[in-house]
Amino acid sequence: MTSPFVSGPPVRIAGAPRGPLTGLTFAAKDLFDVAGHPTGGGNPDWARQHPVPTRHAWAVQRLLDAGATLIGKTVTDEVSLGILGENPFDGTPLNPKAPDRVPGGSSSGSASAVAQGLCDVALGTDTGGSVRVPASFCGLYGIRPTHGRLDLTGMMAQAPSSDTTGWFARDAKTFARVSEVLLGEPIPASLPTRLVVAVDAFGFADAETAAALGPMVRKLSALVKEVREDLLAPPGLSVWARAQRTLQPYEAWLTFKDWIDRDNPRFAFSVARTLVLASTIAESERQWAAMMRAEACARLAWLLPPGTILCMPTTPFPAPPKGLSLATLEPLRARIGCLASQGGLTGVPQVSLPGGAVDGLPVGLSILGARGSDTVLVAVAKAMEAGR
Amino acid sequence: MTSPFVSGPPVRIAGAPRGPLTGLTFAAKDLFDVAGHPTGGGNPDWARQHPVPTRHAWAVQRLLDAGATLIGKTVTDEVSLGILGENPFDGTPLNPKAPDRVPGGSSSGSASAVAQGLCDVALGTDTGGSVRVPASFCGLYGIRPTHGRLDLTGMMAQAPSSDTTGWFARDAKTFARVSEVLLGEPIPASLPTRLVVAVDAFGFADAETAAALGPMVRKLSALVKEVREDLLAPPGLSVWARAQRTLQPYEAWLTFKDWIDRDNPRFAFSVARTLVLASTIAESERQWAAMMRAEACARLAWLLPPGTILCMPTTPFPAPPKGLSLATLEPLRARIGCLASQGGLTGVPQVSLPGGAVDGLPVGLSILGARGSDTVLVAVAKAMEAGR
Repeated sequence: MTSPFVSGPPVRIAGAPRGPLTGLTFAAKDLFDVAGHPTGGGNPDWARQHPVPTRHAWAVQRLLDAGATLIGKTVTDEVSLGILGENPFDGTPLNPKAPDRVPGGSSSGSASAVAQGLCDVALGTDTGGSVRVPASFCGLYGIRPTHGRLDLTGMMAQAPSSDTTGWFARDAKTFARVSEVLLGEPIPASLPTRLVVAVDAFGFADAETAAALGPMVRKLSALVKEVREDLLAPPGLSVWARAQRTLQPYEAWLTFKDWIDRDNPRFAFSVARTLVLASTIAESERQWAAMMRAEACARLAWLLPPGTILCMPTTPFPAPPKGLSLATLEPLRARIGCLASQGGLTGVPQVSLPGGAVDGLPVGLSILGARGSDTVLVAVAKAMEAGR
Repeated sequence: MTSPFVSGPPVRIAGAPRGPLTGLTFAAKDLFDVAGHPTGGGNPDWARQHPVPTRHAWAVQRLLDAGATLIGKTVTDEVSLGILGENPFDGTPLNPKAPDRVPGGSSSGSASAVAQGLCDVALGTDTGGSVRVPASFCGLYGIRPTHGRLDLTGMMAQAPSSDTTGWFARDAKTFARVSEVLLGEPIPASLPTRLVVAVDAFGFADAETAAALGPMVRKLSALVKEVREDLLAPPGLSVWARAQRTLQPYEAWLTFKDWIDRDNPRFAFSVARTLVLASTIAESERQWAAMMRAEACARLAWLLPPGTILCMPTTPFPAPPKGLSLATLEPLRARIGCLASQGGLTGVPQVSLPGGAVDGLPVGLSILGARGSDTVLVAVAKAMEAGR
């Protein structure tokens, strides 16, 4: 059970002829509506309570209109609540770079399909890291765009104030072609001139991971004029993560509670636990988290004026082994969250590029920019690849 | 999906020739080991982590040795955590007395199979009401024996300080035959001489249910010399229920947490919620509940000396409709718990007999006695049926 695609009738919809993406194939995470096919959301009971969509999701339609051909819907962690890519209903999609390791999630099947070469690009979603983490674990290019930039029509919600549509590719050129279409803006030729190296994030990662990213950081430094070290999160990455782990699951609970009440759906224990504990989060804790979110947004606005980017490890370590116990996974999940929370918390765009390898296992290097600077980050990814 | 039997290869094991139960057929809840068949426990992930048993459970072997023939394993609420009989993996067994209603649980399939006449008797388990409630909802005889009386070898545990093996039958004579075998003691000819009518329990039940049980209470009163009204639970049935809802789920959490940690099993949301919230119960709350349990045991020892029985409604109402929302079910579950908690809390034996009907739906009348007086309660059930 390692297929990246959901079971059911095959999905294949040809793209428009003579578009900018003609000749490319893509897959869509099973959170995106494809007309005539149920949206499964990674849960066996979701589709039963929701009608089969009659229209494609905005992002799917956009890629089809641009000429890309849809070749499948991909496995996801249940209702996108997961960061490792282990779904007991659908199986764990193969991480071809590390077959005994998880692919990362929740956009596990999309990352797996692209990494295996089964399609050129794939749509994912990123609320708390669900594109960036599998991009890091599978050695791919992946983007979490500026929150609110893309039209999310037809994409299953989880925590709307953090939800984004993202995508994966194996090479920067393809990544840039798709990004132009989905961002609706050409990739600029000029590059940013200032780089912030987030020393707290590098210090938080495993030493081997930070060391493995060293060559890419030096290469990135060479591309820009000014380089300085600073803290991403002065209160602590763990404090930001705590705020995000308060806001996001509570919002997810609000999203799913009526369905849960009506249907008593089946979940893996870990997913149900997240929702149950979310339902018990106190108002006072949510208020504190909202204040911390405002402070984090202000911090990134100050840290990342136009022309400045920041780099950090996407994940603190490469993909963990498959099938670990919950008690073993919990601290790993928490550490991943500490390097991912700035995305959902502040909404700034982030691109993860293949950054290096630890014992042959990929880890990603992330670059972040000001809200709206998505294409600048893609331009950096292209320049980094060109300079290989 | 209304079969009371679990899917898989058919189970049929002939009983010994010329035993006291020769000619009877029985089924066993899928919490009892049957050699060569996986014990499913109502959960799709339980069997995977547990070996196929090589020996029959004690109760199964006892019935086979006495001549009864095993004809199937029956559906149960997941890991016996449920009181209504709705299992999203295996379906909801038919309640033939009320086809649009739940059968009650967790021994749902056992009650359904007996009520449908598919077998003469069936083994269930009762930790917090799992035999008594389906007996009430399906119009059957059902017993929760004195805690600790029967050998529970080969029966899947939930909360060991409350777990019991119980059984169902459609008529009192068959019920008595099986009870003699499983209790290892003849059913006495003499009847108790004092009856306590638990006015708090009758007052707690729906008025229609209390009224429907009236004729059976009068008949029972006529069988004994002295009848008096008293409180079952002076602190409040809801206070006893709170203690039981503290002790039992926490103990269930201890039973299942290693498996959950290792396997991250799938559960219906409601079952996962019970376990998650159980894992957060404070030590101080458990200590209080343990004190209340000791007081409840003392209360029943005082209220029920040998020769005295108590009667009460088994459930506060007949079977609720199938498919209600969790928010609608929660207060119903809580009310059922208020009339069931004395069993798990104190360990006294309790027999539920067909007690009456509300709008054609069965409700049970329960009789309770001192610890060890199980056969006396069965004798009362026989006398009540004979006097019909």
